Amino acid sequence: MIRVLLAEDQAMVREALAALLGLEPDIEVVAQVARGDEVLAAARAHDVDVALLDIEMPGGTGIEAAAVLHGELPDLKLVVLTTFGRPGYLRGAMESGADAFLVKDAQAARLAEAIRRVLAGERVIDPALAAAALAEGANPLTDREREVLRAAADGSTNADLAATLHLSPGTVRNYLSTAIQKLAARNRTEAVRIARDKGWL
Amino acid sequence: MIRVLLAEDQAMVREALAALLGLEPDIEVVAQVARGDEVLAAARAHDVDVALLDIEMPGGTGIEAAAVLHGELPDLKLVVLTTFGRPGYLRGAMESGADAFLVKDAQAARLAEAIRRVLAGERVIDPALAAAALAEGANPLTDREREVLRAAADGSTNADLAATLHLSPGTVRNYLSTAIQKLAARNRTEAVRIARDKGWL
Repeated sequence: MIRVLLAEDQAMVREALAALLGLEPDIEVVAQVARGDEVLAAARAHDVDVALLDIEMPGGTGIEAAAVLHGELPDLKLVVLTTFGRPGYLRGAMESGADAFLVKDAQAARLAEAIRRVLAGERVIDPALAAAALAEGANPLTDREREVLRAAADGSTNADLAATLHLSPGTVRNYLSTAIQKLAARNRTEAVRIARDKGWL
Repeated sequence: MIRVLLAEDQAMVREALAALLGLEPDIEVVAQVARGDEVLAAARAHDVDVALLDIEMPGGTGIEAAAVLHGELPDLKLVVLTTFGRPGYLRGAMESGADAFLVKDAQAARLAEAIRRVLAGERVIDPALAAAALAEGANPLTDREREVLRAAADGSTNADLAATLHLSPGTVRNYLSTAIQKLAARNRTEAVRIARDKGWL
């Protein structure tokens, strides 16, 4: 039996995926967690073969969890599962050691198939998304620029951002204008949208 | 057997929910669709007792689909299922004739339970969310203000918005400033965020 850990924050979706995998004769979901920072302990405790990681979770994204698992448990196979097939997400997942990258738009049968294939030593990714990620290049934003852009997404003013991030208003303005320029955007809202669509935030 | 129609655009999530409901001895998923505008035909073709509707779908939201089903097939029970437990979504679903409103964060067992309860003539909603929806009042935005705010969410300029929406730039400015004022926001980005959080967009 293939022992699977399922990390997904929406309980109903998580249990539904477990029910789906439970229909497979060779797969057993042995652990379920709802937060990125619970993944490593659960993988260790349950002697897991494959971790299935949703990207958007509290307590750290699935991509961050993949990096931790890859460092601590190098034999564990990692399948990243996401609502959004963004090129930057795929790149981030692969750089973090993921073996497979699946979108929730895919047919359900692809999930069990991906689990079996990564255990056979294969990588499983969508070729079109891989092409887009490679064509697009790496994320041009620095960590600080991403942090400021993410914080700006809710309509905060420069003064708000400066207070929240413990920066001077001038520094906030500089980070924002550099990010807007790198993304060829016309304003901060467009910059947030572009960075989000590409999976760079 | 309770005959269920499942409308959800993410194939993997939809099939996983079908697998979950398939474990129940008294429930049968007899139809699955991925678009809001396919719901009515499928409900008619498969003699359905309960329609389970995701809100965010292409071809019309689950709330719009609920209104259509409620008008055309008044005996059909309607369960609205959503990622986002936004008060405005709950209000919209109830006004459209939904019998139950569930978030995907809820325990999986709640889903089958809700299906059985709506068939017994009950309404199933989260009391805390209902209280929030009632406390908050109705959506203050007009259709036009919502349209302009939605279009402004990607960072479009007033000139872009005017061209896209076939309005004059002055009219766009007026709609935006009224919306910003109604939402007690400081700028359009904050207005978009507030309206989205409340489920008013």
